[in-house]
Amino acid sequence: MIEIIAFDADDTLWQNEALFRSTQAEFRKLLSHYHEEPWIEQRLYETEVKNLAHFGYGIKAFMLSMVETAIELTEGRVSGEEIRRILALGRAMLEAPIQLLDGAEPVLVALARSHELMLITKGDLLDQETKLERSGLRDYFRRIEVVSRKDSGSYRRVLAKYGVSPERFLMVGDSLRSDVLPVLEIGGRAVYIPHETPWAHELVEVELAVRERYIQLESIRELPAAVARLTERVPAG
Amino acid sequence: MIEIIAFDADDTLWQNEALFRSTQAEFRKLLSHYHEEPWIEQRLYETEVKNLAHFGYGIKAFMLSMVETAIELTEGRVSGEEIRRILALGRAMLEAPIQLLDGAEPVLVALARSHELMLITKGDLLDQETKLERSGLRDYFRRIEVVSRKDSGSYRRVLAKYGVSPERFLMVGDSLRSDVLPVLEIGGRAVYIPHETPWAHELVEVELAVRERYIQLESIRELPAAVARLTERVPAG
Repeated sequence: MIEIIAFDADDTLWQNEALFRSTQAEFRKLLSHYHEEPWIEQRLYETEVKNLAHFGYGIKAFMLSMVETAIELTEGRVSGEEIRRILALGRAMLEAPIQLLDGAEPVLVALARSHELMLITKGDLLDQETKLERSGLRDYFRRIEVVSRKDSGSYRRVLAKYGVSPERFLMVGDSLRSDVLPVLEIGGRAVYIPHETPWAHELVEVELAVRERYIQLESIRELPAAVARLTERVPAG
Repeated sequence: MIEIIAFDADDTLWQNEALFRSTQAEFRKLLSHYHEEPWIEQRLYETEVKNLAHFGYGIKAFMLSMVETAIELTEGRVSGEEIRRILALGRAMLEAPIQLLDGAEPVLVALARSHELMLITKGDLLDQETKLERSGLRDYFRRIEVVSRKDSGSYRRVLAKYGVSPERFLMVGDSLRSDVLPVLEIGGRAVYIPHETPWAHELVEVELAVRERYIQLESIRELPAAVARLTERVPAG
């Protein structure tokens, strides 16, 4: 039986990647007099991925990667004024309004009646906390965990911390790499709700045998019915 | 009776402010052909404090504040190459070896025999986690919490999360503002071990009546004896 349903936040409950994409577009435009935009895009992505191990996820890390990319791409010719505009792009991200995904709030309302809800998100601690406050969804969650990365070890630690056994735990998210595969690995269940614009770094290929072990939905609106089916199926199996 | 002893990390268990100070000195030197060093120092501090609400604590926030200060101070004349060197200063901080404070490890060894130890630190999630790994102190702590700020609300949430009542909780740290006053406010006990080079932002004035409510030590080496006295005193009172 599922007792605890945990949700990812970015692109599971609210828009996130769209904000990064629109900022990336402004960044490319800002530097377009130095280089072709596809080349700028590629270099920024490479810098972001290279910096993940040092900076982790989140907007501050992204700001630092934009500054670094601008310097590298221009061999130091980027101006102080251009760097100032890059910092302003990042600040605007930190203050951007939260756009909830269609259906997210009613689904939380419905599931909070029958289950204990939890939020497990990776990224920047302060940024994720303030987004949650601004989202208005704070009170649906009994437990909130911001982790620096989502691998089987981090899920194991979170469940151990609260004394939850994996077979009673369901994770819902938009990333196979972060929300689904590590949870299956520790014996939990997972629902995968792909987002229309995934971040390239989160994409992974999975085999059919693995695909059969999680539930894939088109929209979070389908989640309550999927949870009900899961609950019915368990005693029968 | 004290059951749980929680430690701050930066400048309580290992050197931190010294690393910021040496980086600030390099930053000032780097920009000294634009301005007088005391003026650079003042502007950097103002930028850091102004950015706390947006960026939180930690090295990434500090890197962004250094870049912003360099641009503002030079009215955009700072070169791409100089910004690159500022980013390199920040990266070096992220990889700097951890210098444990004298006595920290033997004190943890001693207290872990009689108490459950916890780490409560504010700052950047990934950075604090990797510092803890590099410190070699990870295994002394049963629970680890990285919080975005340390106020009475955040201590209350951490204690509630683990079902710990404040009167069984002792916090040990180098900041009255972050480690002592908010813990007293929620009814816990606190030990204040000032560090030789505090960060100006953490300094507060306290009245005598408040000073009588916490224990002040000169060194972490004195902590086991202080804990023993505290434990003896409680049943007698």
